[in-house]
Amino acid sequence: MKIIEDPKAIEAKSMQIIEEVANLDYAEREKKVVKRVIHATADFDFKDLIIIADEAIESGLKALKSGSNIVTDVNMLRAGINKRKLGALGGELECFISNEDVAKEAKELGITRSMMSMRKASKNPKNKIFSIGNAPTALFELMKLIEAGKVEPELIIGTPVGFVGAKESKAELEKLDIPFITVKGRKGGSSVAASITNALLYMT
Amino acid sequence: MKIIEDPKAIEAKSMQIIEEVANLDYAEREKKVVKRVIHATADFDFKDLIIIADEAIESGLKALKSGSNIVTDVNMLRAGINKRKLGALGGELECFISNEDVAKEAKELGITRSMMSMRKASKNPKNKIFSIGNAPTALFELMKLIEAGKVEPELIIGTPVGFVGAKESKAELEKLDIPFITVKGRKGGSSVAASITNALLYMT
Repeated sequence: MKIIEDPKAIEAKSMQIIEEVANLDYAEREKKVVKRVIHATADFDFKDLIIIADEAIESGLKALKSGSNIVTDVNMLRAGINKRKLGALGGELECFISNEDVAKEAKELGITRSMMSMRKASKNPKNKIFSIGNAPTALFELMKLIEAGKVEPELIIGTPVGFVGAKESKAELEKLDIPFITVKGRKGGSSVAASITNALLYMT
Repeated sequence: MKIIEDPKAIEAKSMQIIEEVANLDYAEREKKVVKRVIHATADFDFKDLIIIADEAIESGLKALKSGSNIVTDVNMLRAGINKRKLGALGGELECFISNEDVAKEAKELGITRSMMSMRKASKNPKNKIFSIGNAPTALFELMKLIEAGKVEPELIIGTPVGFVGAKESKAELEKLDIPFITVKGRKGGSSVAASITNALLYMT
């Protein structure tokens, strides 16, 4: 068997296969997002699950190009986002879940670290893109902060995964008047959020 | 709506739902692995895709308890593994993909960084567990190193994802006389490899 070893050739071939197998009924830029998620998961279900709000890609690209930071809920997602590409645009990757001050304040207030890290993130006006792949509590807290007028993201990539609160948090996100990209139902996770975020970075 | 906020309560409730929904025909320890993957992906397909070699869990637990390191192919997977738990057992998480020397030597030899990072990992006898969630080339290279007698892992968690080489690399892994955990077909990825690895760590 001939093994293709060049990472770029592997990716190009993969995207071609996805294009051929899936009948992707999306506009060009939206299709890039969906293809990258399928590329990262090999799960074609996502072609019917991903929801991209009308303004989402436009707003996300504008924010990226003006040097906005991206905030993630967990370190695994942060590690999966192309930091070099973001850095070249002037933005930084922020994730506060492991910060000692976040742990301390969360304990004092009796809330989760996920929630506390969103409160901390809301204080820096450069934090305009939120990528939340895991914790429904982080997404719920972000939406509360938005309602309270404490933060106004230019894009929320919200794909918490799982069986408790994930689906509900994403259904709430869909009602919001903030540009969002999400996934219906229980599926999602770090790999999904990372691939959506990277798809946008590669479009800048 | 009442939001459950306690992460431990969310996890317990999730595992209960998975148990109820899926009819998991696995032995007790194997079931813990499968449940954690479904927990991380909300994808019940995995119950029919995960393959756990007879000795795999026993061998992996023995290696972990004796302070072995875990090597990952990519940083995202490293970030998803419970480092504190591994550290308490005396092991370290190793990932060489971003090392400058690896990039330099890979270029000189005309191979991928994934392949070079496996060669580097093979040189430390503490590296007994390999968790490869993304790069088929890393898994192929590891198997070559095993054949050449240069490394003898006590467990390989091999779940490369995708459309080019992933399925083939995992089919090769199944033929190996080394304890392994893998996933049939195209599915896999960092979240899958991380949840399998963590399931083992939580069993120690």
